[in-house]
Amino acid sequence: MKLCQTTADLQEEVALAKAAGKSIGLVPTMGALHEGHGSLIAAARKENELVIVSVFVNPTQFGPGEDLEAYPRTLEADCILAGKMGADIVFAPAAKEMYPSADMTWVEVTGHITKVLCGRSRPIHFRGVTTVVSKLFNLAQPDRAYFGQKDAQQVQVIKRMVKDLFFYVQLRIMPIVREADGLAKSSRNTYLSQEERTAGLILSKSLRYAEELFKQGERDSSRIAAETAKLIGSEPLSEIDYVEIYELPDLKPVAGDITGSCLLAVAVRFGTTRLIDNVILEVE
Amino acid sequence: MKLCQTTADLQEEVALAKAAGKSIGLVPTMGALHEGHGSLIAAARKENELVIVSVFVNPTQFGPGEDLEAYPRTLEADCILAGKMGADIVFAPAAKEMYPSADMTWVEVTGHITKVLCGRSRPIHFRGVTTVVSKLFNLAQPDRAYFGQKDAQQVQVIKRMVKDLFFYVQLRIMPIVREADGLAKSSRNTYLSQEERTAGLILSKSLRYAEELFKQGERDSSRIAAETAKLIGSEPLSEIDYVEIYELPDLKPVAGDITGSCLLAVAVRFGTTRLIDNVILEVE
Repeated sequence: MKLCQTTADLQEEVALAKAAGKSIGLVPTMGALHEGHGSLIAAARKENELVIVSVFVNPTQFGPGEDLEAYPRTLEADCILAGKMGADIVFAPAAKEMYPSADMTWVEVTGHITKVLCGRSRPIHFRGVTTVVSKLFNLAQPDRAYFGQKDAQQVQVIKRMVKDLFFYVQLRIMPIVREADGLAKSSRNTYLSQEERTAGLILSKSLRYAEELFKQGERDSSRIAAETAKLIGSEPLSEIDYVEIYELPDLKPVAGDITGSCLLAVAVRFGTTRLIDNVILEVE
Repeated sequence: MKLCQTTADLQEEVALAKAAGKSIGLVPTMGALHEGHGSLIAAARKENELVIVSVFVNPTQFGPGEDLEAYPRTLEADCILAGKMGADIVFAPAAKEMYPSADMTWVEVTGHITKVLCGRSRPIHFRGVTTVVSKLFNLAQPDRAYFGQKDAQQVQVIKRMVKDLFFYVQLRIMPIVREADGLAKSSRNTYLSQEERTAGLILSKSLRYAEELFKQGERDSSRIAAETAKLIGSEPLSEIDYVEIYELPDLKPVAGDITGSCLLAVAVRFGTTRLIDNVILEVE
């Protein structure tokens, strides 16, 4: 496995692979790799001849007061895990490499798709995401790029960007990987105290409950959201940011009953740590 | 020569060319092709195995009250000229093809590079340009893309975008093509009355005069700009938008004397028609 720390290094590897006619799979990450990322890398390994894992804590997707400084940085361990799961290249550039100009070129998806859910409390977040992902797409020129369904809104925003800008890349969205007790794997889980971690289980529990209601025939989106919020609220350490249901793929509000495919997404604070989780509710 | 009117059509042609290992040259235009465009197409023909000319009057780069509706549309003649100059494909999509979503994904270069010169009177112009050029780059996947120095600020903005977003494309900037009497070729010249057209000659005349001053040793940027503006102002039909000098490549203001490479750019109205022209002043 090769570690590339400059864009020039990566571009050279990509040019060689392209000249050899190799297919390229890209797994964009912010590092602190866990089994969720591992599943993305393994999927990329199966489907591509060259697998690139980017490890970059992207400053432009963090707002003021968010956890940019605290975000876990574990490059050595990341390289080991990435290599084990089949990565050929780990691309871990400095911020200066990814943002070469003092002024910026932004790639931004506008409209309600970036304004609801996480976009409400993190207004600049998705602009940072789409900007860095555009750069990574152009650098790595992937045939396929791998993202986790854990970041459900990010998935929809990137799908929109790829469609609007005609990026030549196939998006592969992988299911949420969970701990044995149900907690969705996240690099931010390491922030949690033991007490908060236990409290955090209410997220997966409440989403399973919502799924159960839906399976039993409940279609009223407000009622499902309200029942989910009520269950989460029953956990004293939880502080709800949102519990909301939107239509896929455009994240439009659901008027009344769920008819097609919807996203039930939650963001909840436990102490200073904000966790997200989600489930898709789909009428067959 | 083949005419592609959908993105899917173009993508198919590009995929075939890529699979065959062909190099691709792209000439993005808004149609109403003249010899200036012709020189770009001829240059692309020399350097690439597949030459794509896009003809698209891009609505997002026109502000309210600008000439979007009036802009000349001459697709049939454009195809003939493009073919004659060596184009393999003319890509002439409908707006709906290029902008498939109701909400938008924008690509925007921020900072003073897009705020000075034309950016001041046309605040959304360059955002429209960089957005559509990003789409065209992703659709056509060119090895080389051809732009005219006539749109000097556009050239610098696109260079910045390519650098910031790591587009895999070589930019080829071609010199301004002029009529025999000096008027820079422009699709908007057709708007001019005979009287305005004659008056418009003051642009190239004043830029040649500025060049002469510079060659004779004048380095004071304010004096060169003032002399140029004075000469343009002597033409009664002229109404100056700007006559300004900025450092290349970042379009930063020149503090006092010109030392490196600078752009002297002018934008002037003649009746309802706004013409631009420019010259590079370079200390050897």
